[in-house]
This record gives sequence, structure tokens and C-alpha cells, in this order.
Amino acid sequence: MSIITLTTDFGHRSGFTGVLKGVIYGIAPNVTVVDIGHGIAAQDVHEGALTLWRACKFFPKDTIHIYIVDPGVGTARRALAANLGSHFFVGPDNGLLTPIIEDAERADQPLKFVHLDNPKYWLPKVSRTFHGRDIFSPVAAHLSNGIPLAELGSFIHDPVRIKMVRPEKTSTGWIAHVTLIDNFGNLATDFPAEALQGRTDILFRIRGTEIHGVVDSYGFRALGDLVAVEDSEDYIELAEVNGSAARRLNAKVGDVVEVIFSE
Amino acid sequence: MSIITLTTDFGHRSGFTGVLKGVIYGIAPNVTVVDIGHGIAAQDVHEGALTLWRACKFFPKDTIHIYIVDPGVGTARRALAANLGSHFFVGPDNGLLTPIIEDAERADQPLKFVHLDNPKYWLPKVSRTFHGRDIFSPVAAHLSNGIPLAELGSFIHDPVRIKMVRPEKTSTGWIAHVTLIDNFGNLATDFPAEALQGRTDILFRIRGTEIHGVVDSYGFRALGDLVAVEDSEDYIELAEVNGSAARRLNAKVGDVVEVIFSE
Amino acid sequence: MSIITLTTDFGHRSGFTGVLKGVIYGIAPNVTVVDIGHGIAAQDVHEGALTLWRACKFFPKDTIHIYIVDPGVGTARRALAANLGSHFFVGPDNGLLTPIIEDAERADQPLKFVHLDNPKYWLPKVSRTFHGRDIFSPVAAHLSNGIPLAELGSFIHDPVRIKMVRPEKTSTGWIAHVTLIDNFGNLATDFPAEALQGRTDILFRIRGTEIHGVVDSYGFRALGDLVAVEDSEDYIELAEVNGSAARRLNAKVGDVVEVIFSE
Repeated sequence: MSIITLTTDFGHRSGFTGVLKGVIYGIAPNVTVVDIGHGIAAQDVHEGALTLWRACKFFPKDTIHIYIVDPGVGTARRALAANLGSHFFVGPDNGLLTPIIEDAERADQPLKFVHLDNPKYWLPKVSRTFHGRDIFSPVAAHLSNGIPLAELGSFIHDPVRIKMVRPEKTSTGWIAHVTLIDNFGNLATDFPAEALQGRTDILFRIRGTEIHGVVDSYGFRALGDLVAVEDSEDYIELAEVNGSAARRLNAKVGDVVEVIFSE
Repeated sequence: MSIITLTTDFGHRSGFTGVLKGVIYGIAPNVTVVDIGHGIAAQDVHEGALTLWRACKFFPKDTIHIYIVDPGVGTARRALAANLGSHFFVGPDNGLLTPIIEDAERADQPLKFVHLDNPKYWLPKVSRTFHGRDIFSPVAAHLSNGIPLAELGSFIHDPVRIKMVRPEKTSTGWIAHVTLIDNFGNLATDFPAEALQGRTDILFRIRGTEIHGVVDSYGFRALGDLVAVEDSEDYIELAEVNGSAARRLNAKVGDVVEVIFSE
Repeated sequence: MSIITLTTDFGHRSGFTGVLKGVIYGIAPNVTVVDIGHGIAAQDVHEGALTLWRACKFFPKDTIHIYIVDPGVGTARRALAANLGSHFFVGPDNGLLTPIIEDAERADQPLKFVHLDNPKYWLPKVSRTFHGRDIFSPVAAHLSNGIPLAELGSFIHDPVRIKMVRPEKTSTGWIAHVTLIDNFGNLATDFPAEALQGRTDILFRIRGTEIHGVVDSYGFRALGDLVAVEDSEDYIELAEVNGSAARRLNAKVGDVVEVIFSE
């Protein structure tokens, strides 16, 4: 069995995600297609990057990940297939893979990039606005059928990268950022819990509101309390117990989170 | 492997779509069930018709498509199984298949319709309000197991058809219509790009706003520009670059789009 | 083939549901994962209980149901695997299984409960906030691979139960309740149709509005009429024909429905 995942900003209304699966199963009938999610904010490559980066590592080796957040579809932007570590990725060359590339580099894993310029593995007719259907899905399906990367196009070494926001050191602590907001209104940040080095005399300030210390999980505080917890990826997350911190604080992705060590 | 697809107006809240899959896998354990989409507007047969028509052609031959947009459930409206071209369809006899039937007729493909009146292939107990679970899902599963159409009911020749809106010729061009709005707020229309016959001196007017010419893809204009593009089905689509034309124009399905050739 | 279902309050935005599937397929490549639904209201154990209870019975025997509505994640609340009748269940010990347990008891079916305290079948690293990924998904996958319940933890006999709201007899009829609201705005109630004992001189009062009698299905009344029908689970449901009773009546889960026999 081999797996192809889908991460897009298509939403669930129009049937586009079903079309991708029809194309894939037509070429690779024995593959298993798995939705990582279709709720990426429209055209938001940064949110797509964080979502796929967080999810992909939990899939088995040789999984093929299709990602389609593609504001440049139909322009000169390249189409890409990549082999990063033990996984494969297919989508537009727009930087969405940046955090996954950086992880693979840090871990000294193999990195291969192919510019998809061989139409033999596309649908016969390619539209200007739906390369997910016409290029990325058929290419991923052929890849799962055993067609090697080298057949799909020309190797390149300069995939587009985007600047990922990172926390910055200050005199009193750090400036961190809200990176993702989930269905519960919990605020994921880019601040790694290990940077606390066990210190508990810590203050998080976001949009004028202060949260003191870090608790083990939501349920250790009362309903409606704002808390900081270590999230499932070992970063600090800000949450309202059984509520929505996003709504409470009117928080948005990109908001500054001041991390202040009291001294 | 054989595929059963699902197109419904059930949304994602109540678990109904999971129930359909439970019934199907119980009868046909080796089938692959694929969601085309469950976000059709409630009871909107016309939107269901366009969504399934656009998506179904990208699935492999012998795919079985269940469609459930069924305002008449539990009344005298018939239940239907159909073989149109190389695909099968199961759902209420309410006209949702109209554009697919018309395509098959134009292409001189086989068309067979069966009124599902043989309860042998239904769930033992049939409710008045959930034929998707009690009739359509088990029938589709038995069909994928190799039960022939003729076993499922009586052949008929008068499936219900609905009037599909079509563009009309005017003295200065055409009156076209918004047919679907996707997750990006892009407005699909019923105006085929080939009707432009290569002319570029064209004006689209919708809700008092004018859009000039046709561009190759969204990314060829600046953020926030309104553009007309040829969509992935070869129809004209109106869009806002990295924005939502639907929100910007307050557009709805059915809105008139004037297509005007300047002379 | 064996089936693992997912019922969660994760929504579709963050990729969490994809992560669960990645973990499952990594351990049990030949299983079929089916979404029952991810739209349970955040932290709403009662809605989760009713949704899973309504859906699970339509799946084949030996299906494994993962449920994750888990406000107590990371606290002392136990993790659970259960065998109820011919199905298996894996999730937090928070009462969500109550109506399924009660059905199995009434039917004298086998009931077994295991406190998941054997980390051998979890992911190597367990977070405080995402046991769906770290404990429930791997445990369900191992269960589908044939690992027996007894291997997964210690048998217990006191699973948490929640109080399910039930209709109450009054001098003129019953006090019933809205239990679920579906995508159409139909209001499911806890009032079993058989309690009408064939009587038709019946009045339903909800939020000051009265609905007389019970019709066979929606389509037997005019657009916009409020009707009572027997739903697909044999309970009384209140609906607006081709509209939303929830919006019309501003109804919420838990609302009182007076059932009054005229005499």
C-alpha cells in the first residue's frame, strides 16, 4: 500500500477535492488517498507550510504529499516534485516546503528537487487554473506507481524559499509569534518550550493581556482561564480552558507574543 | 478495485456521511468510497447537478456515483439507478443528472435508467427521511458487487429533467449567468470560452461592475484586480486576484453576466 | 478488511485529522479509515455521544471507533478501549459512550472496558494535549492488527457515565428535548415515535410555536411549513419544509419540546 496525502485551500464546497481523487485513483487504483486538510486560508502559503510541516512527519516513509496553495497557478512559477528525507512532495514551487526543507538540511537527509517539465505524466489537456487536477495529481499518482523522480522532469537546486518567522531574543526574554489557530481557538506559537529551560517565572503578553506560568494541560485550570501549555509539537500554546483564546483576545496569525522572564 | 463517490448536501456536522460509508462497506468491503463533496447548498438540485457534472468525468470508468440532494424524500418521487456512458449513478429521480444525461445524448453514449423498486437490495427497514442510508447506499454497494442494473428495479425511459440555465444571444453579445461559486469566491459562469472565437475586445458586466478582456491566469494582474479567465472547464470565470469576487460584488449563483462585444 | 472510524471535534482547518490517519496507516496499512465526522461542537461530550451512538450501529461488526472529544486531555482522566456488542471503541473515559453502553446492557451484549495503561502500544513520545495522536490512534491501529484488549491495559468495570437527558411524562403528555441539529436545521428530539401509540391528535410546542400532528415526510407539506416527522431513527423530528427550523425558531440543543395530547 502506498499513501498520497492532500493539503489544499479548496474548502469543501465545490467538489474540487473529489476531482483530485478521481484523477489519482484513475492512474493508481491501489493507492490510499488521505486528506490532511482543505481548510488552509485561501492563497496562504505560510499557513500551508506550517500545516503540512506539522502533519507530514506522522505519515509512514515513502508517503507522497500533494500540496496545493497556488496563487501563481498558470504563470511562470514552476511545478515541483521533491524527495525530502523519506517522503515525497508534489506541488507549486512557491516556498510552501521551506520548513520541511530546513528540517531535512539540519538532519543531513537527502534533498532532491525536480522541475516538472515532462508533460508525459500530466493529464492530456492542461488548464491554466487547475494544475492540482492536471499536473500535481497525475504526477503524484505516477510517482506512487514507481515512475522515478528523474523521469518527471529536470533536477533543480534552487527551490523557492519563504522567510519563516522566528522568535527573537530581547533583553527581558523573547519576541515570539502566533503561527496557527486551530478549531478550538488555541494559539500555536513559534516559541519552543525548551527555550524556557525549566524556568517557571515566565510571563506571556499578547494583545495587552498577560498569562503567567505554564500549566501541564488545559484541565488543570478553571473554565475560562487563559493558560500557556506545551503543545503536542513542544512549542508554547496559548489557550482558554474550554473556550477560544482566539475569540477572547481577537488574536490573528502573526500576532506578537512577548515572552518575559521576571528577574 | 471499484469506486463509489458521494455528493450530498449533508454538511459535516451530523455524522450522516459516515453512516453512508458504514452501510456501503458493510455490503462491499473492498470498494473505495470517495467524497466528491457534502457542501451542496441544502436542497439545491441545480447546484448538485453542476457539481456532480463537473467532477464525475474525472473518475475512472465504472465508477458509481451516489448523489443525495433530495427535497422529495419519502414522497412519491422515484429512486433511480442509471448507466450513462461508462459511469453509474444512484439517487433520487429529481433531475440532478440532467447535464450528464445531455452530455451522454450528445455523445451517443448508452443511457439506461432503472426505477429502484426491488427492496431486496435495500436495508431491511426503510425510513421516510433517509433514503441515502436505506436505499441509495446499499443499492450502490450491491451494484459494485456485480448485481446487474436489471435486478435492482424496472427499466424506465422518462427520468425527470430540470431546465439548466443557458446563455442567450443578444444584439451586442450574450446574457450569461453565474453557475457556481467556489471556496475562493471565484464565479463560474455558463459562458463557454470558445464562444469568444478569439475576440479580446470583450466586456463582462455583473452587478454594475465591468471587467475588460480575458487574462491567461489570475497571477497576471495585480492583487485585488477583477479579472475574467478561462476556467478549468473551458468556461469564463470572474475572479478577484487573491481575493473573493463573490464578496466584492456580493454575487450569487444565478446572477446575470452581460457579455458585450465592443464594435 | 477492517474499519477504523473517527469522530472528533477537531474541525477541518488544522490538519489534525490527517495526522490521526498518518499514525493509523503507519501501524495498520491495510485498514480503511472512515470519518464519521469532525464537526462535533468543541468539548461537547453530549453531542459526541449522540452522534457516535446514531452512526456506529450502521458499521459492520468488528469496526473500531475512535472518538476524541476530550476536555480532560492531559489530566488524570483515564484512556479507554471498550468492546460493546460487536464493536470496539477507543477514546477518553469521559462518558461519551454512555448511550452505547446502555443499549448493550439492554440487549445483554458483552461489555468489556480496558484502562489503557500499557505504553507499549502508544507512540514513543506522548504529549499532554494530543492523546488522539499519541495514544488513541496507535492503540486502535494495534487492535485492528489483532492485539487483544487484554494486552492494551487493565480491565475496569466503572467507566464514567454521563446523564443523558430523557423525556418525562406529564399530565397532558411529555416533556421532550432537542438533542441534535443537522445541516438542514432539522431538530432531532429524544421523543420516540412509538410513544405516540398511533395517536394523531398531538401538538408539539417549542419556543412558543405550535406544530400539529405528524406527517409522513417533509414533502407532504408546503415550502416553509413547520412539520413533525418520524426521523430515520424512529424519533420525532421537527423541521421546516425546505428551510431551517433551527433558524426559524432560534432553537438550540437542549431546548424543551412539549408533547401535548389533546383530550
